[in-house]
Amino acid sequence: MTSAWELLLPAASAPARARGRALQEALRDAVRSGRLTAGTRLPSSRDLAADLGVSRGLVTDAYEQLTAEGYLRSGRGAGTWVGDAVRAPRPRARDLAPRSSGDLADFVPGTPDLSLFPRSAWAAAQRSVLTDLPHESLGYPDPRGLPRLRSALAELLARRRGVVADPERIVVVSGVAQATALLAGVLHARGMHTAGVEDPGSPQHSALYASAGVGTVPLPLDGEGLALGPLRASGVRVVVTTPAHQFPTGIAYSARRRAELLTWARSVDGLVLEDDYDGDFRYDRAPVGALQGLDPERVAYTGSVSKSLAPGLRLGWLLVPDWLADDVVERKRTTDLGHPALDQALFARFVEHGDYDRQLRVCQRAYRERRDTLVAALAEHFPGARVTGIAAGLHAIATLPGRHGPEERFLARVREAGVAVRPLTAYGHGGAAAAPAREVRLVLGYAHVTPGRIRAGVARMAQAV
Amino acid sequence: MTSAWELLLPAASAPARARGRALQEALRDAVRSGRLTAGTRLPSSRDLAADLGVSRGLVTDAYEQLTAEGYLRSGRGAGTWVGDAVRAPRPRARDLAPRSSGDLADFVPGTPDLSLFPRSAWAAAQRSVLTDLPHESLGYPDPRGLPRLRSALAELLARRRGVVADPERIVVVSGVAQATALLAGVLHARGMHTAGVEDPGSPQHSALYASAGVGTVPLPLDGEGLALGPLRASGVRVVVTTPAHQFPTGIAYSARRRAELLTWARSVDGLVLEDDYDGDFRYDRAPVGALQGLDPERVAYTGSVSKSLAPGLRLGWLLVPDWLADDVVERKRTTDLGHPALDQALFARFVEHGDYDRQLRVCQRAYRERRDTLVAALAEHFPGARVTGIAAGLHAIATLPGRHGPEERFLARVREAGVAVRPLTAYGHGGAAAAPAREVRLVLGYAHVTPGRIRAGVARMAQAV
Repeated sequence: MTSAWELLLPAASAPARARGRALQEALRDAVRSGRLTAGTRLPSSRDLAADLGVSRGLVTDAYEQLTAEGYLRSGRGAGTWVGDAVRAPRPRARDLAPRSSGDLADFVPGTPDLSLFPRSAWAAAQRSVLTDLPHESLGYPDPRGLPRLRSALAELLARRRGVVADPERIVVVSGVAQATALLAGVLHARGMHTAGVEDPGSPQHSALYASAGVGTVPLPLDGEGLALGPLRASGVRVVVTTPAHQFPTGIAYSARRRAELLTWARSVDGLVLEDDYDGDFRYDRAPVGALQGLDPERVAYTGSVSKSLAPGLRLGWLLVPDWLADDVVERKRTTDLGHPALDQALFARFVEHGDYDRQLRVCQRAYRERRDTLVAALAEHFPGARVTGIAAGLHAIATLPGRHGPEERFLARVREAGVAVRPLTAYGHGGAAAAPAREVRLVLGYAHVTPGRIRAGVARMAQAV
Repeated sequence: MTSAWELLLPAASAPARARGRALQEALRDAVRSGRLTAGTRLPSSRDLAADLGVSRGLVTDAYEQLTAEGYLRSGRGAGTWVGDAVRAPRPRARDLAPRSSGDLADFVPGTPDLSLFPRSAWAAAQRSVLTDLPHESLGYPDPRGLPRLRSALAELLARRRGVVADPERIVVVSGVAQATALLAGVLHARGMHTAGVEDPGSPQHSALYASAGVGTVPLPLDGEGLALGPLRASGVRVVVTTPAHQFPTGIAYSARRRAELLTWARSVDGLVLEDDYDGDFRYDRAPVGALQGLDPERVAYTGSVSKSLAPGLRLGWLLVPDWLADDVVERKRTTDLGHPALDQALFARFVEHGDYDRQLRVCQRAYRERRDTLVAALAEHFPGARVTGIAAGLHAIATLPGRHGPEERFLARVREAGVAVRPLTAYGHGGAAAAPAREVRLVLGYAHVTPGRIRAGVARMAQAV
């Protein structure tokens, strides 16, 4: 018995005389109870009759009767559907996806412009992959990722980011979060129970490490990157960094600090996790290559398509040192059996055909324009404001003159005016040096906001305060 | 500077007179060193010239020179590619995906027929989703899963599996492995440091629980399911079960044992994890509804599309009791920020349009025929063989008469003959009752093997021993 409609089976085995009525009652109950929900399409009367082992006429009758009663409805032409007349108190799915919180403009950092997603190139890649993929590629994938994608990523990351990229040491992951969680689990198993994090830094890291039982130590920055003294004193052997474009302060690690960081890692037999979250976007010069390229045995490198294509794709990569590779791959294999195969094949083709480079060029042009717009608008409406950090990435740091503070009052007024902004202090772990009392320092994400809205948002901010 | 080719930048800033040669050298080095790999497409001379800020003629010259030297090659019409003349010792990606191990037939259990994957219906869903999806749905998804998919799954699982399915308690995951890993992490944080597993059972569970720091206790089965005495004596409060079709023995839990299991869970304030890995496929009657339907606060329910569509999709679901829901969702959010959004929207549409029910019908028909073929072939070639377990799922248990043993000799001979089979003992945790000495008990997956190969494989086995 192959039916998807086994709830009707008892009716089908009723005595022949009562069978029709029993079938109708069972269908009615199913709709009333919510087991069949509004909009569900019913099988054709032929299919259902075959599945239940009853005559087709019995099913046709039941459909007609319940349609007459308002439980079911018929589409034009063919098809019968569950109607929406019944008010079963059926729970509905709420949506807890992150939402924009500004009416006029939300300068949340880290979000790309989703309208730039290259739908037609993506669709072409989808078609091609589904046509060409051999059947066996639909089985359980290599836990490290499809070989074809790892080769494409190795070429891409070597070329664009100066990474030393051996396809055998790339693990395809769902993004930087999963990369971090996997690595944290492996390090915990090797007895590293604390990790250093940049302060200020990404608010996600503490929870990520905690999920693997690893504690975090906030480590302060100076003008060149992670401050070395506190790092050495902390006793940690693992540290998470964003050397190409520190999040959120926007500085680039100095060449000297990059070298010092590696010397430190070697001296403690430790590891630097390089989160290259937006390293593709630099507007004033060529991007500085990844730290990993200098010492691939002391640096694990991670990145994703979340800033270049869309966070909803959940696709990223982790390059691991040789001494961690087997453990990381084994943990990936155990905990989710590898990344979706079709998605991987699709992205491999997208990279191979130059579509990814093209997308990066499109984003680079758009985001550079938006950054310029933001800087100009701030200069116009907040004379004396300073924009710090390098010209890169998807966000900027703006320090507004003291007369706009204190921060809390500023933020409250701006929020009321329909503009959402976040203060730099929101990214501190509590240990960072506080800003001078009346100064307001904002983390302004601009990539997903059109130039018009950037200008309007900044103007509105200025009016509000 | 937006170039994907920043490795050429130093050359572009060489003095005007030396620029052409510098560019050629840089390109040559990039190919020699493997930073540009064979088959990489170069930008058009116009694009590269613009990106580097040099004249187009310089780039055209460089392309021509290097093409002449064999570093690059020109396609017909347009396009310049990196040639494959240079023998840089570039590491290549190996493929560690699981592979079939039988020349003639591999009766590995748990694999569907990947050639039944509904490519055209899938392609239609892909097209429709990519066309219709609003931009904002490409952002970070709801960590529990897209509301649309959770609603579709709630309807599907209530109808097909008798599950009590509140969309607010469904978490979209990458499969049963991730569901188990998430749950194990949450239970560990709540102080449950050991879990019971069926013995014999899935070989994955120990590693899965270990990844979250949870130990496992193998618990023996009797004819009705998990034996109650050892379960009670074990002291565990969490147990993983496969009540609809125990893996691998193939029995269905008795109605009495189902009730007893829930009574036990309530008495220890515990949890039953119901792994409904192949519950859709039953050939002798309608599938027995899920245990979860009887007590959704004591049973977490998990399943996936790995048996019905393809394991490579990495898509599944976890239904959690209210008291665990927030923790599980938070762990999913922290460790991977939610499941890929496009994949979710695609599968939601696939379910809503009845495509998934249709696929299950197709598989049900094919797998029933294959099971019948296997049973008939065993009866013909191994008179006296017994096939045990219910007529369901993707594998059967065959006990061959004593004269074919001992097991090791049997397996060796069959392997030499090009047929891969696994003994039931391979799924034991060491505590299961041993089979009588000379009897051979095999776990035979048939779903992915064509009827012809099933017949040939069984015949070959019989010849070999």
